[in-house]
Amino acid sequence: MKLVVIGGGSSYTPELVEGVILHSRTLPVTEIVLIDVPMGEKKIQINTDFAKRMIAHAGLDISVRYTLDRKEGLAGAAFVITQLRVGGLGARAKDERIPLTYGVIGQETTGPGGFFKALRTIPVLLDICKDMEEVCPDAWLINFTNPAGIVTEAVLKHTGIKCIGLCNVSINMWHDAAGRLGVPVEDMDCRFIGLNHLSVMNHAYCGGEDRIGDVLAVSNSESVVKNIEKNDEMDILAREMGCMFSPYLQYFYSEKEMLRKETKEALSIEGTRANQVKRVEAELFKCYQNESLKEKPEALAKRGGARYSEAAIKLIDSIYNDRKDVQVVDVQNHGTIPELPDDCVIEMNCVIGKNGAEPLKDAEVPAEILGLVVQVKAYELLTIEAAIEGDRRKALLALMNNPLVHDVKDARGILEDMLEAHKEYLPRFGQ
Amino acid sequence: MKLVVIGGGSSYTPELVEGVILHSRTLPVTEIVLIDVPMGEKKIQINTDFAKRMIAHAGLDISVRYTLDRKEGLAGAAFVITQLRVGGLGARAKDERIPLTYGVIGQETTGPGGFFKALRTIPVLLDICKDMEEVCPDAWLINFTNPAGIVTEAVLKHTGIKCIGLCNVSINMWHDAAGRLGVPVEDMDCRFIGLNHLSVMNHAYCGGEDRIGDVLAVSNSESVVKNIEKNDEMDILAREMGCMFSPYLQYFYSEKEMLRKETKEALSIEGTRANQVKRVEAELFKCYQNESLKEKPEALAKRGGARYSEAAIKLIDSIYNDRKDVQVVDVQNHGTIPELPDDCVIEMNCVIGKNGAEPLKDAEVPAEILGLVVQVKAYELLTIEAAIEGDRRKALLALMNNPLVHDVKDARGILEDMLEAHKEYLPRFGQ
Amino acid sequence: MKLVVIGGGSSYTPELVEGVILHSRTLPVTEIVLIDVPMGEKKIQINTDFAKRMIAHAGLDISVRYTLDRKEGLAGAAFVITQLRVGGLGARAKDERIPLTYGVIGQETTGPGGFFKALRTIPVLLDICKDMEEVCPDAWLINFTNPAGIVTEAVLKHTGIKCIGLCNVSINMWHDAAGRLGVPVEDMDCRFIGLNHLSVMNHAYCGGEDRIGDVLAVSNSESVVKNIEKNDEMDILAREMGCMFSPYLQYFYSEKEMLRKETKEALSIEGTRANQVKRVEAELFKCYQNESLKEKPEALAKRGGARYSEAAIKLIDSIYNDRKDVQVVDVQNHGTIPELPDDCVIEMNCVIGKNGAEPLKDAEVPAEILGLVVQVKAYELLTIEAAIEGDRRKALLALMNNPLVHDVKDARGILEDMLEAHKEYLPRFGQ
Amino acid sequence: MKLVVIGGGSSYTPELVEGVILHSRTLPVTEIVLIDVPMGEKKIQINTDFAKRMIAHAGLDISVRYTLDRKEGLAGAAFVITQLRVGGLGARAKDERIPLTYGVIGQETTGPGGFFKALRTIPVLLDICKDMEEVCPDAWLINFTNPAGIVTEAVLKHTGIKCIGLCNVSINMWHDAAGRLGVPVEDMDCRFIGLNHLSVMNHAYCGGEDRIGDVLAVSNSESVVKNIEKNDEMDILAREMGCMFSPYLQYFYSEKEMLRKETKEALSIEGTRANQVKRVEAELFKCYQNESLKEKPEALAKRGGARYSEAAIKLIDSIYNDRKDVQVVDVQNHGTIPELPDDCVIEMNCVIGKNGAEPLKDAEVPAEILGLVVQVKAYELLTIEAAIEGDRRKALLALMNNPLVHDVKDARGILEDMLEAHKEYLPRFGQ
Repeated sequence: MKLVVIGGGSSYTPELVEGVILHSRTLPVTEIVLIDVPMGEKKIQINTDFAKRMIAHAGLDISVRYTLDRKEGLAGAAFVITQLRVGGLGARAKDERIPLTYGVIGQETTGPGGFFKALRTIPVLLDICKDMEEVCPDAWLINFTNPAGIVTEAVLKHTGIKCIGLCNVSINMWHDAAGRLGVPVEDMDCRFIGLNHLSVMNHAYCGGEDRIGDVLAVSNSESVVKNIEKNDEMDILAREMGCMFSPYLQYFYSEKEMLRKETKEALSIEGTRANQVKRVEAELFKCYQNESLKEKPEALAKRGGARYSEAAIKLIDSIYNDRKDVQVVDVQNHGTIPELPDDCVIEMNCVIGKNGAEPLKDAEVPAEILGLVVQVKAYELLTIEAAIEGDRRKALLALMNNPLVHDVKDARGILEDMLEAHKEYLPRFGQ
Repeated sequence: MKLVVIGGGSSYTPELVEGVILHSRTLPVTEIVLIDVPMGEKKIQINTDFAKRMIAHAGLDISVRYTLDRKEGLAGAAFVITQLRVGGLGARAKDERIPLTYGVIGQETTGPGGFFKALRTIPVLLDICKDMEEVCPDAWLINFTNPAGIVTEAVLKHTGIKCIGLCNVSINMWHDAAGRLGVPVEDMDCRFIGLNHLSVMNHAYCGGEDRIGDVLAVSNSESVVKNIEKNDEMDILAREMGCMFSPYLQYFYSEKEMLRKETKEALSIEGTRANQVKRVEAELFKCYQNESLKEKPEALAKRGGARYSEAAIKLIDSIYNDRKDVQVVDVQNHGTIPELPDDCVIEMNCVIGKNGAEPLKDAEVPAEILGLVVQVKAYELLTIEAAIEGDRRKALLALMNNPLVHDVKDARGILEDMLEAHKEYLPRFGQ
Repeated sequence: MKLVVIGGGSSYTPELVEGVILHSRTLPVTEIVLIDVPMGEKKIQINTDFAKRMIAHAGLDISVRYTLDRKEGLAGAAFVITQLRVGGLGARAKDERIPLTYGVIGQETTGPGGFFKALRTIPVLLDICKDMEEVCPDAWLINFTNPAGIVTEAVLKHTGIKCIGLCNVSINMWHDAAGRLGVPVEDMDCRFIGLNHLSVMNHAYCGGEDRIGDVLAVSNSESVVKNIEKNDEMDILAREMGCMFSPYLQYFYSEKEMLRKETKEALSIEGTRANQVKRVEAELFKCYQNESLKEKPEALAKRGGARYSEAAIKLIDSIYNDRKDVQVVDVQNHGTIPELPDDCVIEMNCVIGKNGAEPLKDAEVPAEILGLVVQVKAYELLTIEAAIEGDRRKALLALMNNPLVHDVKDARGILEDMLEAHKEYLPRFGQ
Repeated sequence: MKLVVIGGGSSYTPELVEGVILHSRTLPVTEIVLIDVPMGEKKIQINTDFAKRMIAHAGLDISVRYTLDRKEGLAGAAFVITQLRVGGLGARAKDERIPLTYGVIGQETTGPGGFFKALRTIPVLLDICKDMEEVCPDAWLINFTNPAGIVTEAVLKHTGIKCIGLCNVSINMWHDAAGRLGVPVEDMDCRFIGLNHLSVMNHAYCGGEDRIGDVLAVSNSESVVKNIEKNDEMDILAREMGCMFSPYLQYFYSEKEMLRKETKEALSIEGTRANQVKRVEAELFKCYQNESLKEKPEALAKRGGARYSEAAIKLIDSIYNDRKDVQVVDVQNHGTIPELPDDCVIEMNCVIGKNGAEPLKDAEVPAEILGLVVQVKAYELLTIEAAIEGDRRKALLALMNNPLVHDVKDARGILEDMLEAHKEYLPRFGQ
C-alpha cells in the first residue's frame, strides 16, 4: 500500500510519518513517497532523511523516498495526502497583511486572506487530480490543504477523484469537550455541523445523554488551535447560542477585537502568524537535520497542527479497513442542510468506510448560525467559480459576499493589490 | 367603505388623503377615521381639519374624523392603514445615535436601530390586530410601519388578520428604471425579489424584452429615497451584480462610508435624520394649519415618503376591485424562495386581488445576494421572537445575526443602552 | 459706586448679585446696571426682577436696572464686568461640534473651539472698550469672558482701558488643595503660574512651609470644574510633574481619551456641554421667574461657575479698598516669564490694590510645562492678530500653532467650516 | 593627519572615503581608521578593503585600517566622525514599530522613536568622549549620529571634547532652493534657523537680494530626503509661513497623514524604513565586495544620505584650513535664540574656522515656529537628563513634552514596551 504526500517538504511531515508508524499494525503502508515543488527540495530532503530514521528506529519496513516529478510519484498510490501551500509562507504573509492595510481581517483561511489562498490553491489541486486520473484513478485524496472546505468542494465538483476534506479543529474540540467533562475522549460522541472553519458542536453525547450544556458550562480560556488566542466573550456567547464554537467563529463574532489584535501584531516586531511560523519552521528544520533525532520532536507542537496526523491516519485506516466508525470530515451536502446546494461541501460527522464518508442523517444547523453558514457558502461558491474561470467580476462578488468585508471600496482595493502581489501564482487571472 | 389610518397624526396623512381623492372614481371611500395616541392629538387635529378642507375642495362627500379610542375607531373598517411610529422621532433619534456611539450603523430600519424599532412596534401591532379581530375581523391591514417586512411577518404569524406589507421603495425604483430608459412607467414590468429594504430589481421588461442591462448601463446619481444619499460605487456594483439595488443595500455594500457619513452627521449641528425630520415636520404642520391651504403642499416632498399614497391606494383599489394586477408587496414566502421558511415574509411582485397578494411563480434570488437575504432573515426571525417574548438572550442573538453588527461586545453594549433608553416602550423586557 | 454687567442676561447674574450683597459692608455699590443685546432681553428682564427681589430681601438700597443701550448703561461706571457670550449657546455648540467632525477636540476655550470664540469675542470687547473710553474711561474692566487670557491680552494691547482678566479655576484649585490637606482655605498661600486655562499650582504654602508634595499625595477624583470629568491619570501625572494641574491640562495630557469622550457625548442623545447647558439654563430661568424666590437657587451650582462671584467681588473689593492682598488673575507678563513677550497676558498670583494687579516677583514656570506654555502663547498671539485683522492666513497659522491641531488638512477644513458657520459674528473676515 | 570613523562598518563609509579623495588637495589626510563593535566586523572588513581599492584607484597615499579596539584606534586622531547606530537596524525597526502599536508616529529621529535612539546613543557617545579625552583630547568630534542635535548637546554639556553636530538636510535644502531658482548653488546664501530636524530656511539671498519668496513660489514635489515622501500640503503651508521647511516638519504639520502612511507601510509586506534599508544595505555590501568596484556605486544614492560626505569633509576642511566660511551646523545657542537656554544646541548658519563654529548674529526664529522650537527643546532637555541619569520619571516627562505624543496613557505604554525591547542597550535604566 503506497502513501503519497504532496507538500512533503512541509514541517508537518514527521507528524504524519509518526501516524503511519503508530497505525502500522492495522494499516500496512509499504511505501511513502514525498512530493514537492523544486523550491522545496532542501526541506523535502531533510524530511525524507528524518522519516527514514524514524521508520528504522520503529523497526518497520517501509520505503521512503521523495521526488519532484509529481506524476511519477503519484503512480499506483492508494492514498494521496495534500498538505501543500502554494507560494509558501511568503504568500501567507501577503494574505495576512494586505487586507489589514484596508482595515480588514487578514487571515489564512477566513476573509480575503483565505479567499486568495483559495484562488492560488484550487487550480493546483485540479492539476494534481488530473495527474491522479491518469496514474492512480482509484486512489483516495485526503485533502488537508486550506481552505479545506472550498478546495475539497472544487475537487469534488470538477474532477472524478474520490476526495475527503479534513481538518484538525473538530478533533481538538472533541478533546476539549472531553477535557471539560473530565471523561475519556473515547467515551464521548460529539456532533458537529457547519462548514470547514465555520462549524459548531451542537451535541456532546456521553453515556447516551447529550451533555452539551455541561460542556458549555465549563469555561476554558485555552483555544483549541494555537493560532487563535481565545477572548473572554467566546465561551459566554457559545453558552447563549447553545453550542460549542469552532475557534474560527471568533473572527466573525469578535471581529473588531480580532482586527485590533491582528493589526497590533502586524505592526509589531514579532509580525503576523506567517512571520512567526517562519521562525518556528526554521527551528524545526534545524532540529530535523540532527542525525541523532529519531522521533517527532516536542517543538513541533508549537507549529499549530495538533492531532493532524491522528485525524489523517485514522481516516485512512477507516477507509482501508471499512470500519464504519464516525469521524468529522468535509463531504458533499446531498440534502443534509436543506438551505445549501446538494453538491456543496459541508463539515460534519460521517460514517467512514471503504466507500468513503456518509453524513449522519439527523443533523440540523442551529438557527443562530444558519444565516452565517449560508452567507459564507455563497462566498465559497463564487470563490470556486472565480478561481477556475480567472474571473475578476466573480472575485469581487465573492469578496462582497464574505462577511468580513464591509465595503465595496475595500473589496476593490484588496482585490487589485492582491491580484498584483500574488500574480505569479494566479496565471488564470492573466494580465 | 370605511378607511382607518392608525398613526393619523403623521405628517404623511395629507399624502394619503390625496390618494383617496385621486382614486375616488374607482374606490368609493365614504369615511376616513384617523387614530392616534394622546401625545399626538394636536397633530391629528391639524390633519383632520386639513383633510376636511382637501376633500371639500375636491367636491367629494367623504366624512373625516379622528379619535384617540382605537377600538371604537376601528369598528366596521374595510381597510386599516398603519403608519405609526412608537416613541415618535425622539425614539428614532435614539435608534440612530446609540449604535453610533459603538461605531455601528444607526438607522431607522436596518442595523440595531431597525431592530429596536421592531421591538417597540411589534407588540403594538399585535394589540391593534387584537382589536381588529374583535371589531373588524374581515378588514385588510395595509402595513406601512417600519421595519415593514418584520412587522408584517409578526402579524401574519401571530394573528388572524389579513395583512399586506407595503413600502414605497420599489415603486420609486420602478420609476427610476423607467426614467433611465426614457419610457413611460406603465410600459415597464419590473421584477423585484428579496426582503423589505433588502430587495433588488432583477428584471425590467419593456415591450416583452428584459432590458435590465440597459437600465443598469445608465448611471443616476440621485437616490430613489430622500434619506439615503447615493454614493458613487453603487451603480457600478449594481452593474457587476446584474440587478438594480434597493438604496438600503448601500448600508451593507458601502458600510464603512455610510458609517463615516452618519457619524459626521450625528456630530454636526444639523444632526441625524430624526433631528432633520423633526424640523421638516414642524414646518409641515405649520403649513397644514394654514386655513387657505387645500391641497398637499410641495414641502411634503422633502419628507421622504414619495409615492407613498400612490402605493397604498393602488393596493387597496386592486384588492377592492379584484384587479389581478401586479404590485410589489410584502407577503409570506410559501416556497417562493426555497432557502427561506414558508411562513416568513418576503418582498416581491404579486398578483393583487380580492384574496390578497399571490407571489409570481418564476422568481429567483440572484446568487450574489442570496447569502445576505438568508442572513438578514435569520436576524428577522430572532427579532420577532425576541420582541414577542421579551427575551434578552434572543435579542442578543438577533443582533449577532445582523450583518451590520460585527462584535459581541458592541452587541451587548448596544442592547443594554437601548433597552434602558427605550424602556418606556418595551414593557415586555421588564426589569 | 456704579457696577455695570455686560452680558447681564447670563444665568450667572444672580451669583454676582449675591456677591455684591455679601460684600455690601465693604463695597458700597449703589447702582447695578445690566446690559445685553436685544436677543437676550427676555432673560435680562428676568434677571433684573430677580436681582431686585434678592436685594430687597437683603434689606439693601441698591438700584438695579437693565438697558440694551450699551453706551448709556456704561456712563459713569466704576467697575464693568464682562460675562457675555457672542452668539450664545448656539455658537458654542458649533465650536464644540465642528472640530469633532475632523477628529479634533471641540471645546469652549481650548483648541479650535476656543479659537473661534476668541475670533468672535475680541472685536466685541474692543468695541465695549471704545464705549468705555468715551463714557467711563477710568472704570476698571473685570473680564470674565472666555477665552479670558486671550481676550484680556487683546484689550490691554489695543485699548487704553484698565483691565484685569479673571477665572474661577485657580480659586477652585486653591479650595481643592486646602480640602486635600484638611486645613482652612485662608491658612493656605497657593501659587499659580502659566496662562489662563493652562496654569499649574507649583507651591502650596501652609504655616510657612511648602506643602505642595502633601497636596499632590492626596488623590481627588473630583474635578475642580463641573464641565471636565477628571480621568484617573491626572493626579498621578501631576505628582510626577510636581505641581497641581488646571483641569484644562487634561485636554493636552489626556487628549485621546478626552476626544473619545467628547465624541461619544456629541453622538449621544444628551449631546455636548452646550446642549446640556441649554437645558440647565432653561431650568434656571424658569426658577428665576418664581416670584417667591429671593435667594440664589441651589440649581445654579450645576451650571459650572462655582465661586465665580467670590472671585469677581473679591477682586473689585481689593481694588476699591486698595487691600494689597494676593489674588490669582490675568495680567501682562512684564518679564515675569522671560521666555514670553512682555506685553502678553499670563495668569498668576498678583498683589491687588488701587493701581490694579502687580505680579509676585519670584515666580518660575516648571521646565515640564514651559514648552506647552510658550507654544500656546504663540497660538494666542496669532489668534489676537487674526481676530483684529480678519486675516485668514494668520487664522490658519494660529490653528497650526494650537497643540490640539495635528494636521494642516484638519486646520484648513475646520477653518473653512467655522468661518462659514459663524460668519454672522465674524464681520472682519468679510467674504 | 589622522581621521577616525566610529561606526566604520556603516554602508555610508564609502561616501566618506570619496569625500576624502575629492578634498585630497586641500585636506592632507594620511591615515583613516575605521572603528566598530564586534557585531559589525564583517561589514567593516568589507568597507576597509573597498576603501583601499578606492584610494589606490585615486592614486593617493592614505593608509586605511580598521580596529575593534576603540581607544587604540582613536589615539592621536585629528578628526573623529561618529556615524554609529546603537543596536543597528534591528533597534531602529523597534523605534519605528512600537509607537505605531499605540497609534503614535514611529520615526528614527522624531517622536518616541528618536527619543529611544537618544537614550541608547547618548551614553555611548559620552564613553567615546571619555576615550578621546584620554588619547586625543584636541581632536574635533564631528557628530553625525542621530538625533544629532540632542547627542551633540549632551556631548557639549557633559564632556570637554570639541564637538560640532552635522546633518545633510540643510545642505540638501540649499540645493533645492538653488534648483528652484535655477541658479548655481554657490551663488546662494541660504539662512537656516531652528533645531536639528526642526529647522526652516527663512532667507535665501542671491545677488544680495532675499529671494525666499521666489523660492517658495516654486513647488517641488520631491522631498530633499529619501525617507520622507512629501505631501501636497507642505509647499503651500511653507508659503503661508514664509519659510522653507525641513522635511521633518511634515511629521508635525501633517501628523495624521504621516501616521496613516507609516501605519500602512508597517502593515505591508515592504515594512518600515528600517526593513527597507536592511534590504538596501544587504545589496550595497554585496556590491562593495565586488573586487572590481573601485568607486562609490550608484546604488548608494538609494540609502538616503545624499551629500553626507560633502557636508562632513567641507566642515573638516574649513576647520583645518581656518576658512571662515559659512556652513549650517549644530552648535550651542549662547543667546542666539533668546527664548532658549544658552547651553542648548541649535542648528543654524555659522562661521567655520580653526576655533570651530560661531553662529551668525542676526538670526531670528519666525513667530510661527517659535512655539514648536521651544516645545521640542523642552523635550530634548529632559531627554538628555533621562538618558544620563537613567531616570524613568524624566523619561516619561520627556515623552509628554514631545509634540507627537498626545496622551499620557500612550506615553506610559510606549515607555514600558520600549524600555523592555531595548533593555540590552539601556543599562542605565537598570531593572
